Amino acid sequence: MKKNYLLAPGPTPIPPEVLEALGRPIIHHRTPLYEEILREVRGGLKYLFQTKSEVLIFASSGTGAMEGAVTNTLCAGDKALVVEGGKFGERFSQICRAYGVIPIALPVAWGQAVNPGVIENVLREDPSIKAVFIQATETSTGVLHPVGEIAALVSRLPGTLLVVDGISHLGAVELPMDEWKLDVVLCGSQKALMLPPGLAFAALSDKAWEFVERSTLPRFYFDFKKELKNLTQNQSAYTPAISLVVGLAESLRLIRKEGLENILVRHARLAKATRAAVGALGLELYAPRAYSDAVTAVLAPPGIDGQKVVKILREKHNLTIAGGQDRAKGKIFRLAHMGYIDGADIVAGIAAMELTLHELGYKFEMGAGVKAAMKILVNG
Amino acid sequence: MKKNYLLAPGPTPIPPEVLEALGRPIIHHRTPLYEEILREVRGGLKYLFQTKSEVLIFASSGTGAMEGAVTNTLCAGDKALVVEGGKFGERFSQICRAYGVIPIALPVAWGQAVNPGVIENVLREDPSIKAVFIQATETSTGVLHPVGEIAALVSRLPGTLLVVDGISHLGAVELPMDEWKLDVVLCGSQKALMLPPGLAFAALSDKAWEFVERSTLPRFYFDFKKELKNLTQNQSAYTPAISLVVGLAESLRLIRKEGLENILVRHARLAKATRAAVGALGLELYAPRAYSDAVTAVLAPPGIDGQKVVKILREKHNLTIAGGQDRAKGKIFRLAHMGYIDGADIVAGIAAMELTLHELGYKFEMGAGVKAAMKILVNG
Repeated sequence: MKKNYLLAPGPTPIPPEVLEALGRPIIHHRTPLYEEILREVRGGLKYLFQTKSEVLIFASSGTGAMEGAVTNTLCAGDKALVVEGGKFGERFSQICRAYGVIPIALPVAWGQAVNPGVIENVLREDPSIKAVFIQATETSTGVLHPVGEIAALVSRLPGTLLVVDGISHLGAVELPMDEWKLDVVLCGSQKALMLPPGLAFAALSDKAWEFVERSTLPRFYFDFKKELKNLTQNQSAYTPAISLVVGLAESLRLIRKEGLENILVRHARLAKATRAAVGALGLELYAPRAYSDAVTAVLAPPGIDGQKVVKILREKHNLTIAGGQDRAKGKIFRLAHMGYIDGADIVAGIAAMELTLHELGYKFEMGAGVKAAMKILVNG
Repeated sequence: MKKNYLLAPGPTPIPPEVLEALGRPIIHHRTPLYEEILREVRGGLKYLFQTKSEVLIFASSGTGAMEGAVTNTLCAGDKALVVEGGKFGERFSQICRAYGVIPIALPVAWGQAVNPGVIENVLREDPSIKAVFIQATETSTGVLHPVGEIAALVSRLPGTLLVVDGISHLGAVELPMDEWKLDVVLCGSQKALMLPPGLAFAALSDKAWEFVERSTLPRFYFDFKKELKNLTQNQSAYTPAISLVVGLAESLRLIRKEGLENILVRHARLAKATRAAVGALGLELYAPRAYSDAVTAVLAPPGIDGQKVVKILREKHNLTIAGGQDRAKGKIFRLAHMGYIDGADIVAGIAAMELTLHELGYKFEMGAGVKAAMKILVNG
């Protein structure tokens, strides 16, 4: 017998209701039936994004929406401030360079959050900067950036947009788009939305739509304006990923049923339990002062390769988590708690982690992590 | 009771084996298990494309691969000859314009195939043309273009690529990439591949890869070279549409089991049966001299709106087909026979079409279409 467990920061486990929807006979997208589903999905996405704006849907991975956020709002030669505190921050710079936008990288040590004061200074010194790109949660480090504070600064500047990658964040951790005055918020299907990868999302503020009107970068597949026009007619510019959209309708129903506020509380509790276990085992967080409740990055103990932890967990305990990427490879391992995850998943995950660390020769009191997690799960 | 039938040119019906795969618990993509699946898929796609080249896989609709075919092979200011005989031909011109490539449109009357001699003349008169873009089957008209003959011309020109949109074609009608010396062949998941929409494919000849090296157009998500590098390691540059790739492994197994040669014979027979029914009912083909075996476009009888045929079929007979697009809207309706379709589907579809035409007041001998189709299905 082999039961598989998944605590990775994307893909995340899929609820049976959604799996069932994914396996249904396909329906045609140019039909009233599909349009009714898309109408419901539009409402559900606005609820999730906490916005009055339409949330565009693309058949692509999240990177497609990241590209679209650059190519639909900026012009060649524009300058963009990019918070580079991990692999996904760096991706925004790469996209900018690919399209002739000048990225002004703001390097942040991996595992640390950006200081909003630094962003404020950079924007004051160079008012020509057209956009700030940032991750709400930087998946590669488990860091939570202070997006709300940054938005308070950027929203005062009429010539600068704040583009927030909420891919490993939205639906797990607070990100109220309209209340915080975020200009572009991006998301992907395979995280807190409890779906397979293959859908990307982008919502734009009125200010961002004004940038779209002036933007001259080339785009076709990820053309936000064309997609908006089709979406308001409950259609898409090109053939949509129908089965994923049908699954999305189911996952949004589950989200509405639980309630976004309750969902955020659940994620906070699961993340706190995970961190408590990490501490009880004598391990350290990679982002001790700036952790996100979406994914917990743990420093591998001295002398133990983080990649080995991942490998043994997968091969011996049927649990898939994520290792470190790029410069963090081998140094950390990452336990996610996004989406269709409950306390039992966390307990099982920590138990497997304890067994794995034990096998790798790490010294600790067996069960201490699980015990610490359970205390949080019981008492909140 | 309501049973749904689908004879549209995408999406097409999905076999139960594939539906089952789509509804399985998700697996992580950075694992040996997924890499083993992708290894198998790579082999299956090469079989389907009849090529030794790698077939790139993107999480997107087919239009994404069309965009990539432009942005990865050309430079701003390059000229491209675009066969414009339908909606999808026009799309290539739109993509070219979006990226600063100069499309030289070769207009072909809707419902007719391009004359290879005209292409030869244009290319002789302007040797600076860098690429020829064409649909193998133009979905919007049901036309089969003579790609083999055109390839024989273009393959002799070292400075010109032939880019073939095989989206509504590959796996239904002959398109041997290497034998015909096609430079770029594109496909999508929701046609003869019997999958939901959400995957796009692109295979490139050695000559096309040389163009990629010299191409300077901007691209990021649809970066062919980056994707190739990852694919040869059984990975993808960005998070893949995992569930669709797992489903693809199943559909490619079905394709290998039936055998490509048998599949093409089946499609030819189903298409011939459909055309026989059309003729027996006194109806006319939209492409009487250049029909594709992937989709049959039928002229609506005088005085009958093609959109009404589609609507009644859907609402009264639970059969979804496609109407005409753009300038063909109302004038035609399209019955596809791509992928998971057998003779019973065709008979049921034609019976529903007869009932619908009868309801719309069209005069014909009831059952004549079905009878004509059955004769072909029996005798081939």
